Amino acid sequence: MLKVPCLLVASLWLQLFLCSFLGPVEGGKVLVMPVDGSHWLSMKILVEELSRRGHEMVVLVPDTSVLIQGSDTYTTRSFKVPYTKAELDGSMKKLQERIIKAPEFSDLFENIIGLLSFTSMQVKGCESLLYDEALMQELREKRFDLMLTDPFLPCGPIIGKAFSLPAVYFLRGLPCGLDLDAAQCPSPPSYVPRLFSDNTDVMTFPQRVKNMLMTGLEGILCKVIYSSFDELTSRYLKKDVSYRDVLAHAAIWLNRFDFTFEYPRPGMPNMVKIGGINCAKRKPLPADLEEFVDGSGDHGFIVFTLGTFVSEMPESKTQEFFKAFRQIPQRVLWRYTGVTPKDIPENVKLLKWLPQNDLLAHPKAKVFITHGGSHGIYEGICNAVPMVMIPLFGDQRDNVNRMVVRGVAESLNMYDLIAEKLLMAIRKVLNDKSYREKITKLSLIHKDRPIEPLDLAVFWSEFVMRHGGAKHLSPAAQHLNWVQYHSLDVFGFLLLVLTIVVFISVKTCMFCVRKCFRRTPKSKKE
Amino acid sequence: MLKVPCLLVASLWLQLFLCSFLGPVEGGKVLVMPVDGSHWLSMKILVEELSRRGHEMVVLVPDTSVLIQGSDTYTTRSFKVPYTKAELDGSMKKLQERIIKAPEFSDLFENIIGLLSFTSMQVKGCESLLYDEALMQELREKRFDLMLTDPFLPCGPIIGKAFSLPAVYFLRGLPCGLDLDAAQCPSPPSYVPRLFSDNTDVMTFPQRVKNMLMTGLEGILCKVIYSSFDELTSRYLKKDVSYRDVLAHAAIWLNRFDFTFEYPRPGMPNMVKIGGINCAKRKPLPADLEEFVDGSGDHGFIVFTLGTFVSEMPESKTQEFFKAFRQIPQRVLWRYTGVTPKDIPENVKLLKWLPQNDLLAHPKAKVFITHGGSHGIYEGICNAVPMVMIPLFGDQRDNVNRMVVRGVAESLNMYDLIAEKLLMAIRKVLNDKSYREKITKLSLIHKDRPIEPLDLAVFWSEFVMRHGGAKHLSPAAQHLNWVQYHSLDVFGFLLLVLTIVVFISVKTCMFCVRKCFRRTPKSKKE
Repeated sequence: MLKVPCLLVASLWLQLFLCSFLGPVEGGKVLVMPVDGSHWLSMKILVEELSRRGHEMVVLVPDTSVLIQGSDTYTTRSFKVPYTKAELDGSMKKLQERIIKAPEFSDLFENIIGLLSFTSMQVKGCESLLYDEALMQELREKRFDLMLTDPFLPCGPIIGKAFSLPAVYFLRGLPCGLDLDAAQCPSPPSYVPRLFSDNTDVMTFPQRVKNMLMTGLEGILCKVIYSSFDELTSRYLKKDVSYRDVLAHAAIWLNRFDFTFEYPRPGMPNMVKIGGINCAKRKPLPADLEEFVDGSGDHGFIVFTLGTFVSEMPESKTQEFFKAFRQIPQRVLWRYTGVTPKDIPENVKLLKWLPQNDLLAHPKAKVFITHGGSHGIYEGICNAVPMVMIPLFGDQRDNVNRMVVRGVAESLNMYDLIAEKLLMAIRKVLNDKSYREKITKLSLIHKDRPIEPLDLAVFWSEFVMRHGGAKHLSPAAQHLNWVQYHSLDVFGFLLLVLTIVVFISVKTCMFCVRKCFRRTPKSKKE
Repeated sequence: MLKVPCLLVASLWLQLFLCSFLGPVEGGKVLVMPVDGSHWLSMKILVEELSRRGHEMVVLVPDTSVLIQGSDTYTTRSFKVPYTKAELDGSMKKLQERIIKAPEFSDLFENIIGLLSFTSMQVKGCESLLYDEALMQELREKRFDLMLTDPFLPCGPIIGKAFSLPAVYFLRGLPCGLDLDAAQCPSPPSYVPRLFSDNTDVMTFPQRVKNMLMTGLEGILCKVIYSSFDELTSRYLKKDVSYRDVLAHAAIWLNRFDFTFEYPRPGMPNMVKIGGINCAKRKPLPADLEEFVDGSGDHGFIVFTLGTFVSEMPESKTQEFFKAFRQIPQRVLWRYTGVTPKDIPENVKLLKWLPQNDLLAHPKAKVFITHGGSHGIYEGICNAVPMVMIPLFGDQRDNVNRMVVRGVAESLNMYDLIAEKLLMAIRKVLNDKSYREKITKLSLIHKDRPIEPLDLAVFWSEFVMRHGGAKHLSPAAQHLNWVQYHSLDVFGFLLLVLTIVVFISVKTCMFCVRKCFRRTPKSKKE
């Protein structure tokens, strides 16, 4: 009945055209503190766009950086970290091994240990940056207008606070909901599932009990996970503030999700949804890849990646994948960085790096085998490719649940993955038309939006620069403590008043009753 | 340092240009059930824009309509109401008198009686429409794609539900927060002030206690205010549903406010902020008005309106205004529909109708004297004109508080208004530069937005038509009752478990202690 709003899309392109015609908005100075790895890949898109619009972008990069590299479009400023690249690689290798071999993903403690071991090294790197006084002085003198940072690690928010810069946070979400807590965003445990709970937004009574217990556990987890963050924050800022207190001063939270992925839940005025920011821009495929995928005929091809961390695996596991791939007519493109395994099937091509979004955008892409990182998921949604998902660690299992419950993906465990299970999942997703239909519908809804996520992120970053923050969007709840926010003091007071009123009433009644009883015998005597 | 995003504004115009160039999106059929009076004035803008974009708009109009009139851009379908225009006018006249003479605005019961007397007549009109079977059958057969309605009165939402149409609600807010309740939007009483509470978003402990008591009172008020709505809803739909249950199925809530007016508070994914939708389009002034305001010289002029309801007042009150106006060099334009009063000062012009927004947009507009309706306030904000506010009834006092606390307005009471007080307020707003500075800043922030409110309203109306709703934005909380939503059953269960555990532990301890004590005497004996 109604067509997709081509006009709004056309308007976006015209806006881009206009920008280049009229020239960018007068430039601001932006200090960028990213988090290495996949986190950087989507933030980079915003950094490049802001740079293109005439802002001076200074990106702080640890000298052991994996994915953050120099560029023509932005300035990088390297800082020393107290560990070598080899030590970092070793730590990541250990994490990989733990991930592949872990018998049970849902093991909460396994996940927390993984998270702690990953962040503890990074926090040390962060400390090293903060106490590099020459560099900090140099940065302070630059008089930046904005701190653009990923609050997954504490450096950016702490520097923002130390320099009194308005901060824009770029994130999918923080462990144990620290972002929601800091933004004073309600998150009712009755329908907002907690991380690692395996719940969806529709819960049975036992699931709601579990969710409530997980909510309580989050409070304790927060203390553990963020203890080093809190210590560094209060030590560096020389006052008794927690990391949460620093985050609470966010001007804008750029949330890298929307409601085709996340379950609908409350938001705050300074939270802006930019889910799908990573898959807006498509480039043509390199010639060799184009030839490979074109040669897949009507059967099409499968894209297979397990994210930044896990791009190799034990030979025995690899052979299970090969065994399954040999039994399907589709071609397979697999991002694989380890030692080249033996007996690679003819229909499989291993590559050290894949243009994932461009491949998924190809009309012959049939299935996307992925670990369930939020970036990959959005590339699957944008390009309407149904998924076979193998969650590994962190929020991935929760992400995967969100896709499975929408009927656009099948889920597998890496630990007990064998060729038969993989084959069954791939065939199910390939042959059951509902997966393709549902992801197509989800993709249409995701892309049917009044403004593109990148434009929204640019707008709010520039808004914060123009107005020195976004105070009109910050809730007054920021001035309340936990007891006040939940009105527990008010309830206590009202309960006290009620008790006193009831007490006085009862006493008065008893007094009256006693009076009456005294009189009765008297009158009898009379 | 950074300029206002002229590019985004330019892009809007280009979008409009594009729309006319490429032609509108393929047309849908929209049934519109507005609320008469000022409510219609802003909804009309959306109705006309949707019509311009090729949608068939059918507007239901009571045959006693005050402001809703026929138009070339949309179809009107008149329906009979069981009262005459004279009776309606009489009822409104009574309301006016009560408003002007009421000794104390904040009298909650006065307000509720006013609200009930206004809605009870309208609900009868609504009933008359619902039970006009021929008309309802005719409408049903039109197979509309969307119900666009103002849920201030129940007809629209009930028809939407009866016809199984996805509904877009257009509103500022509903009495006693029924809209927030239906949308499952959290509204913590610790910092979200309740209607008639006179609180801001920053409250002292006593104010928070008052706000909590008002929250409790709202529950009772809701029962009273919406009892006739509930009765009509369940009777017409022939099942046990309340008006709130019907509202809960909203696809999109178009909220006619933003956070330059409202205090920052949580929102839901299907709530879209379109504050300021009524002041985007400006037209040149009629020649006689242009001449009058141009002749005001450097002193400029004052715009004075008290809304749709109150456009006349007792002679004695009018003379108090005149007395004040005689003492200022500014010219005054006053919307006044009653009998022409005597001794009109030379600098005052009375008019039956004012192009309020176009006048406020004039560079010589110095002060806006207004009752604090949300439409007028947004016209004040858009055009950066500081205000002298005389709240009359409904949400106006709360609206006025929001402007006063931002330092862009002075507030007066109609009951005890005398020339001296009015004069003092006008002079304060004219001479103290902070009012002008603050409203200019507020206006800049209000207009610095990624997409215009009208475009946003159009987008989401069309989105709902394209996808038959916006289910992906509807929270799963809709399936929970009050006890479940607040996890009271879960708390109860956990408390029970805790009690049992404590009971068993205590019993076990006591058993052990008893055992120990028994043994001791024995061993002593031995």
